[in-house]
Amino acid sequence: MSTCESRTIWWDDGLWLIDQTKLPGELVPVRILSVKQLVNAIRALQIRGAPALGAAGAYGIALAADLSSATSAQDLILELETAAQMLKGSRPTAINLSWGVDRAVRSAANGETAEEVREAALREAEEIAEEDIRINRALGRNGAKLLEDGDSVLTHCNAGRLACVGWGTALGVIRSAAEAGKRIHVYACETRPLYQGSRLTAWELAQDGIEVTLICDSMSGSLMRKGMIDKAIVGADRITKDAVFNKIGTYNHAVLARFHRIPFYVAAPLSTFDPKHQEEEITVEERDPEEICTFGGTRLAPEGIDVYNPAFDATPLELVTGLITEKGVFRPPLMPPI
Amino acid sequence: MSTCESRTIWWDDGLWLIDQTKLPGELVPVRILSVKQLVNAIRALQIRGAPALGAAGAYGIALAADLSSATSAQDLILELETAAQMLKGSRPTAINLSWGVDRAVRSAANGETAEEVREAALREAEEIAEEDIRINRALGRNGAKLLEDGDSVLTHCNAGRLACVGWGTALGVIRSAAEAGKRIHVYACETRPLYQGSRLTAWELAQDGIEVTLICDSMSGSLMRKGMIDKAIVGADRITKDAVFNKIGTYNHAVLARFHRIPFYVAAPLSTFDPKHQEEEITVEERDPEEICTFGGTRLAPEGIDVYNPAFDATPLELVTGLITEKGVFRPPLMPPI
Repeated sequence: MSTCESRTIWWDDGLWLIDQTKLPGELVPVRILSVKQLVNAIRALQIRGAPALGAAGAYGIALAADLSSATSAQDLILELETAAQMLKGSRPTAINLSWGVDRAVRSAANGETAEEVREAALREAEEIAEEDIRINRALGRNGAKLLEDGDSVLTHCNAGRLACVGWGTALGVIRSAAEAGKRIHVYACETRPLYQGSRLTAWELAQDGIEVTLICDSMSGSLMRKGMIDKAIVGADRITKDAVFNKIGTYNHAVLARFHRIPFYVAAPLSTFDPKHQEEEITVEERDPEEICTFGGTRLAPEGIDVYNPAFDATPLELVTGLITEKGVFRPPLMPPI
Repeated sequence: MSTCESRTIWWDDGLWLIDQTKLPGELVPVRILSVKQLVNAIRALQIRGAPALGAAGAYGIALAADLSSATSAQDLILELETAAQMLKGSRPTAINLSWGVDRAVRSAANGETAEEVREAALREAEEIAEEDIRINRALGRNGAKLLEDGDSVLTHCNAGRLACVGWGTALGVIRSAAEAGKRIHVYACETRPLYQGSRLTAWELAQDGIEVTLICDSMSGSLMRKGMIDKAIVGADRITKDAVFNKIGTYNHAVLARFHRIPFYVAAPLSTFDPKHQEEEITVEERDPEEICTFGGTRLAPEGIDVYNPAFDATPLELVTGLITEKGVFRPPLMPPI
């Protein structure tokens, strides 16, 4: 049985996830009782991170199947397709969400009875979740070779186990390096506006006993200039044939790393790659201005002010030293075969 | 009589200032009753911004003189020297603070009676305050020529009238351009950790009817890459012979501007220049980690986490397109004659 100690999302007689908006204060498991609740949880970032969203999408299909009273495979599959649209629409940028939804729907569609459809959907979701950890472990081992004992590594947002089912991508690389006996110091950018760096990355690294120093996003260049950063590693929400979409702020760090000749790595499973599209075709989610204007009920900015709040930015592959995947490290313009 | 409508700090039968920590919620004048209270107000950023700190330093000396019961000029001047040390130590990086304190002490030292010392100190403080607005107006006119109608300008922190006695430096340039009939759109970086961009810059520009869009600090590169930024203008806390010290985050924007071939200007009065020193000799203030770890009583980061919180960074002059001063615009390596 999976629990919140080891996973961000799991099935235990129903769908559960860690409400990440409550961290670092409380580690709270939430039971998800409907697809609509899952959609809201995804929108509110109770669960977030591209790989975790892949699993969440698949589990969402399993949940829709579980809750349905359809008695024929055909009726149930139609319902799953409706659920799939709802789930995919919850956040537009991370490709893994659609990928997980589609995988679960495709598997479910092989069922010949409603019961077989239900079983297939859940089996596929569980397989994606298991796979996620295996893949991150492999990706971590591949990336760990790039880190040296004593390295200081900059990261942005949370590409840790909280962004995945477990282990993590960018932080998975750091965990694997630590597991191999290397001492790594992480500089975690707090990641405005939603502080995934302070709330999640600092928390999970501290839990694992990995040295971490929290900084504001705007300090990265200053640290690089002082020689305090050896490498930068981030995750990704989607990698098109020309760019890495990741949390807003990633591009700033990538340009600063290039300017200071610091290697800039992106760690992501193959499920994050979208080689059929290019940057300009991708919708970047714009989020509520209130995320920037208020915090905990306190106004940070005057009422009615104009705000621009994109959730992601695009970093052209020319600025990426290496793409760390479960199939190895690819140095652009080389890309993993998909 | 000066009031909080037009100035950040003024003398009206005693020393007053706007408590900027209460903005944008409330415009609250505070009466300053002791040098110690002024030192605490400076430390707590109730008053901040290099030019405003110049005036605050001088007014602090005037206040010390006003409160003293010394009856001889000699005794009073000794007391002012003690007050000068307290005031200068309140924040180490902005040079204008020491500059204002020293100017007031020097003037006061010419007094032959205690009463003359008191009058001279206050006269000098009032002169610095008047001068600040005249200088910023001149600086604004010089800088406004660099802006074209329709320009979008990125700024960081608050180098506005709230950072000065009035008008502003970086925002003074924008005000002067607007006054000359140019339409300027400002992208204000919120400026973590203390949100001077959201709380102060967005507020004062909105009050003046200048178009402003609030963004997170980490969005600057993404906007530049999309062609949304024509120029960047920031203020400065100290300009040595090789670098501009300004609010942490300035250096990131400067590198990003260079990478995107966007002009990067620094607007500052001559009182900000420190041509006798170089970057490595300057102490950069490190502030309380709690500024990053908590907000309004809510924890953003786990307890006990290591934090790095420098208040300023240094931008080498090579990255600066022009230094906008009251004596004209100087393109490094050219520097204003001081």
